[in-house]
Amino acid sequence: MSNPSLLILPGDGIGPEVMAEVRKIIDWYGAKRDLAFDVSEDLVGGCAYDKHGTPLHDDTMAKAQEVDAVLLGAVGGPKYDTLDFSVKPERGLLRLRKEMDLYANLRPAQCFDALADFSSLKKHVVAGLDIMIIRELTSGVYFGEPRGIFKEGNERVGINTQRYTESEIERVARSGFEMARKRGNKLCSMEKANVMESGVLWREVVQRIGDTEYPDVELSHMYADAGAMQLTRWPKQFDVIVTDNLFGDLLSDLAAMLTGSLGMLPSASLGAPMANGRPKALYEPVHGSAPDIAGQGKANPIACILSFAMALRYSFDKGDEATRLEKAVEKVLADGYRTADLLGEEGRSPVSTSQMGDAVIAAL
Amino acid sequence: MSNPSLLILPGDGIGPEVMAEVRKIIDWYGAKRDLAFDVSEDLVGGCAYDKHGTPLHDDTMAKAQEVDAVLLGAVGGPKYDTLDFSVKPERGLLRLRKEMDLYANLRPAQCFDALADFSSLKKHVVAGLDIMIIRELTSGVYFGEPRGIFKEGNERVGINTQRYTESEIERVARSGFEMARKRGNKLCSMEKANVMESGVLWREVVQRIGDTEYPDVELSHMYADAGAMQLTRWPKQFDVIVTDNLFGDLLSDLAAMLTGSLGMLPSASLGAPMANGRPKALYEPVHGSAPDIAGQGKANPIACILSFAMALRYSFDKGDEATRLEKAVEKVLADGYRTADLLGEEGRSPVSTSQMGDAVIAAL
Ligand SMILES: CC(C)[C@H](C(=O)O)[C@@H](O)C(=O)O
Ligand SMILES: CC(C)[C@H](C(=O)O)[C@@H](O)C(=O)O
Repeated sequence: MSNPSLLILPGDGIGPEVMAEVRKIIDWYGAKRDLAFDVSEDLVGGCAYDKHGTPLHDDTMAKAQEVDAVLLGAVGGPKYDTLDFSVKPERGLLRLRKEMDLYANLRPAQCFDALADFSSLKKHVVAGLDIMIIRELTSGVYFGEPRGIFKEGNERVGINTQRYTESEIERVARSGFEMARKRGNKLCSMEKANVMESGVLWREVVQRIGDTEYPDVELSHMYADAGAMQLTRWPKQFDVIVTDNLFGDLLSDLAAMLTGSLGMLPSASLGAPMANGRPKALYEPVHGSAPDIAGQGKANPIACILSFAMALRYSFDKGDEATRLEKAVEKVLADGYRTADLLGEEGRSPVSTSQMGDAVIAAL
Repeated sequence: MSNPSLLILPGDGIGPEVMAEVRKIIDWYGAKRDLAFDVSEDLVGGCAYDKHGTPLHDDTMAKAQEVDAVLLGAVGGPKYDTLDFSVKPERGLLRLRKEMDLYANLRPAQCFDALADFSSLKKHVVAGLDIMIIRELTSGVYFGEPRGIFKEGNERVGINTQRYTESEIERVARSGFEMARKRGNKLCSMEKANVMESGVLWREVVQRIGDTEYPDVELSHMYADAGAMQLTRWPKQFDVIVTDNLFGDLLSDLAAMLTGSLGMLPSASLGAPMANGRPKALYEPVHGSAPDIAGQGKANPIACILSFAMALRYSFDKGDEATRLEKAVEKVLADGYRTADLLGEEGRSPVSTSQMGDAVIAAL
């Protein structure tokens, strides 16, 4: 049997640096745990635009469709800010999500004990926090048509369309309920059903899926603005949250920031099962390309490393190995290793990106 | 010269209770400061639906158009949750905003010294916080067409339209810049120009208004998801924020929750100047109708009282009197008066809604 295949897309900014540490981890698994991967690498985002004039070349897109999982670093940077909308770095990422049909974006927001002090929130509010946001990722206002900037009389008008079909809501609702069953059995769905009809349909469909297929899961609904408030006030009231693409973008970033350590948070974007039973999948850290610190060895590789842990769990059914890696990360933190982003006014000196990667290997 | 006119719409839930305290304050201004108002009262929301079968009767709408300012309590409640979308309590509020063309929603997020401990955020993160969010209120996905739930093949699809014209962006951008000039001269505009063309137009127009009309104001742009993060991480980096209707809904509620005291926060919704020079205006507390505590004398009337202070400032050009009222509220808090929502685990016993109102009068 051939090795499972991984396509690595380091992208822009700190992407390549943090991904280099993940490659060390991948090599470790091949050498020590008999878990070898066929790894290929390609371009996405600004660097792909620089080479090909497009943020995602068709060949790269085709490769992404064939492999067992894609690992992505980050895209974007000031250099590309003035590019036309259609070739912005983000379009590369959005095309991957859309064409691989990665409809369920898993965004864990977990507060690491060793880092609880680092949050802007009070320690008792976030210590032990562990919530999972499931964000719909292939529809809604991100992809709805019509869209664009049009002439209307003497002026222009900017238009985007929020759009959800019943089946789009059903499948991501099921992802939410399944996740809830694996965790605390509680699902909260968020929308703006009080002002948007797309939210009315969302709420109705989630409720129906709950009633008919997951009566054992405790389901609640919340308006997204109230959700933002409640996440800020007392995030531990939540277990699993399911929400649409745009609300999910804001709410998952908000939840990430509650933990105080953005450089720590991974994500998984999953689609339907392929012929081999594995879901289409892309894994990426939550942080961005951080162009201000790129190339300086300051970036924290843990979010990207933990994204690989999610790949072990969700693509390769190696939950044990994922846990091993997560525990190694916890140990390294408990031992006091800190990249620059994890140092407050403590006056300690930070470890570099590669020192952090090496520490994780040592802990493995 | 006749007295300025006020239309009071207490609405549902705790609306009538908190508004009763505002009426005491209004009476005090008439008696003691020679500032009498012609006050009328009417229905909005669920109570209007109960009486008229619509959350806002045409006669009420007409009155709102004629008066110098509208004061609103809150709308909604579980009793109305199953009503058809078109007659939900919220539609009454949204109709007022739309037909009065109240395009600039001023949402101050201020942390009161006496209450800084009450936030879920660390004290040094929020103490002294004072930011102003200007939310566009009459356009965007709240009102864009097409909208609705439609049949498409075998299933239904929920659609809403995000839509902004250049002139809609221009006028609210100006509100933002004007506010910045009165404060710290710093404006941050938030959208998702990386994924939405309506955000591309938003960013471009705000930048142009800044360059051509307000070169003295320091302008920056941020993606709304990053904005949610930055508000959570270090809110004091902001002075004035301008954003669209939907992002503004989430971000202003998030900002409100940072202060830890939702029961304290007022808002103003302003439109174009009327013939008498006063802007069309509606003032309302940020909190909702809180049906769980309605009718028990537990509600905090301060947000509604401070909404009246905003009316004094923005509709009646009585900044001094507004400050007087705000100072009275601060004194009452410093003296230890707390409604139930402002008590943590302190074990003190709360004052009632009307005791709080009386304390403010005494402090005046
Ligand atoms: C980079 C950008 C297109 C993206 C999004 O808006 O989805 C990012 O914010 C995210 O959450 O993954
Ligand atoms: C009640 C509701 C329609 C309203 C909104 O979404 O605008 C509320 O959340 C607000 O912010 O004033």
